[in-house]
Amino acid sequence: MHIVITGGAGFLGSRLARQLLQRGQLTGADGKAQAITRITLLDVAPAQGFNDPRIESITGDIADAAVIARAIGPDTQSIFHLAAIVSGHAEADFDLGMKINFDATRLILERARALGTKPRVVFTSSVAVFGGDLPAQVPDNALLMPQSSYGAQKVMGELLINDYSRKGFIDGRAMRMPTISVRPGAPNKAASSFASGIIREPLNGQHAICPVSPETRMWLMSPRKAIENLIHGHEINGADLGLARFLSIDGLSVTVRDMVDALEQVAGAEVVKRIEWKEDEAIKRIVNSWPGNFNAARARALGFTADKDFAGIVRAHIEDEAKK
Amino acid sequence: MHIVITGGAGFLGSRLARQLLQRGQLTGADGKAQAITRITLLDVAPAQGFNDPRIESITGDIADAAVIARAIGPDTQSIFHLAAIVSGHAEADFDLGMKINFDATRLILERARALGTKPRVVFTSSVAVFGGDLPAQVPDNALLMPQSSYGAQKVMGELLINDYSRKGFIDGRAMRMPTISVRPGAPNKAASSFASGIIREPLNGQHAICPVSPETRMWLMSPRKAIENLIHGHEINGADLGLARFLSIDGLSVTVRDMVDALEQVAGAEVVKRIEWKEDEAIKRIVNSWPGNFNAARARALGFTADKDFAGIVRAHIEDEAKK
Repeated sequence: MHIVITGGAGFLGSRLARQLLQRGQLTGADGKAQAITRITLLDVAPAQGFNDPRIESITGDIADAAVIARAIGPDTQSIFHLAAIVSGHAEADFDLGMKINFDATRLILERARALGTKPRVVFTSSVAVFGGDLPAQVPDNALLMPQSSYGAQKVMGELLINDYSRKGFIDGRAMRMPTISVRPGAPNKAASSFASGIIREPLNGQHAICPVSPETRMWLMSPRKAIENLIHGHEINGADLGLARFLSIDGLSVTVRDMVDALEQVAGAEVVKRIEWKEDEAIKRIVNSWPGNFNAARARALGFTADKDFAGIVRAHIEDEAKK
Repeated sequence: MHIVITGGAGFLGSRLARQLLQRGQLTGADGKAQAITRITLLDVAPAQGFNDPRIESITGDIADAAVIARAIGPDTQSIFHLAAIVSGHAEADFDLGMKINFDATRLILERARALGTKPRVVFTSSVAVFGGDLPAQVPDNALLMPQSSYGAQKVMGELLINDYSRKGFIDGRAMRMPTISVRPGAPNKAASSFASGIIREPLNGQHAICPVSPETRMWLMSPRKAIENLIHGHEINGADLGLARFLSIDGLSVTVRDMVDALEQVAGAEVVKRIEWKEDEAIKRIVNSWPGNFNAARARALGFTADKDFAGIVRAHIEDEAKK
């Protein structure tokens, strides 16, 4: 079984690859677990730290059809399409967001369609597809009204996934992931970057800025849980998704204050003092347009699971970092 | 004031042009009625039957940026983007649907954005953006779940209109038009073509096939009302649309049986005998995925209006045909 992961050199893509290597198998179209023979990590930068003959790293622009054709071939049975221009970046550079978040997604789906083998495609969507006037707990049938270009581009990607699946071109599933926290590494241009930064940096003895108010409610998921759910999203039967190949994944609803309290509980009061509260209007506008709580009944019924509490997420982050 | 109408040689585009010529003015960005100096009708075929110096006809492929650049220029203040591959055709030819319904829409919006003058853009969307499990009367905040490629492409167009407006590139409005009945002329490849054919053909002494059951509920609008609402949609203040530049237009909810009864009431029992009931599964699948009734409260609050009854629509059709 050949699997392609776009954004494969990124934090989530690499972690997904490692988990897949460890499992050694994945359930695909025929409903049976198959041995993973090759994983292609496609990204703008080469994937780092792999020492496994099953891993292949391809670097290139995913908005280039030739690059996609190199990565996705007749033997490709699964594609995890994670590559994206993050929310804040897509808002600042509209054309780049359209090119990577939409055009590249379409090229990947066109390539998958051209294979004629109906490969499984897992597309990561986002809570940013929502916006506007919503109930405190967003139901599965809520209207999508993105208030960022990133969100609009993700909805367009969901629509392609849905229509390509309906037409029988692919077997797709678009999963609206909660904000991932705690991400390791450096801050990025996502409007939600702080949701990892305010935990990660203080734990590293560094200063962090929180650009939103403590009352801001966030819909979160740990990296471990995200990987588990991405794999589950691949393995479920496409027919079980019914008419909608898009899905809000269950997450953990916490306020930023809850997050900081959990950090204090796990790491102590001194650590928390490294957070500076300094609101940023551009970030607040985007983050506040995202719902902070969902009733993801459909995802739960399909077997997706959420983290239990944020302190547990902080502890898992410390554990994962200690392993490096 | 220069206005561009795509699909300008079509029935709705030509009729809109005629109505605009008769009015002589249109309210645009500054909220003031301006004299219409030029209307460009862009279509694959030349516009017919105009004899007015203000009318310009440009023929070409609207998926060609050079053609769009010829039609839309620095003096263009308004664009009515009506051109589309209809539902049944877009379902049969996925790539053509994507090219015209989506790519061409994007090219038009890119051209409008490049002008730097934030022109008003009226985009015709459709009830086909809906599908799946919906309440009998669809509210304004219902989830979009298109069950046709045409519907998916229209949602993607709405998302572009919304995001381009939010970013200040254009002043757009996407109007989900009910099925237009009674269309004059020949049948087309729209799944809803019968909704005009079962009235128009019998009135012309011709045989017509009804491919859906008499219980099928339709959401309809007469051509006259459609033109009135398209102009109204152009003239309303963009800010009044709030966060959502897309809008379900108010229509008339009738069953196909109601339509035929109205035809009998207006034209007599002999005329109705020319309708043959012969169900077509492909058409039924698409038409039955569209809601037949809405609570278009938002459109009503914004001053859009609906036809009162279907017999009135049939009479108006007879009147309009007699004028030719």
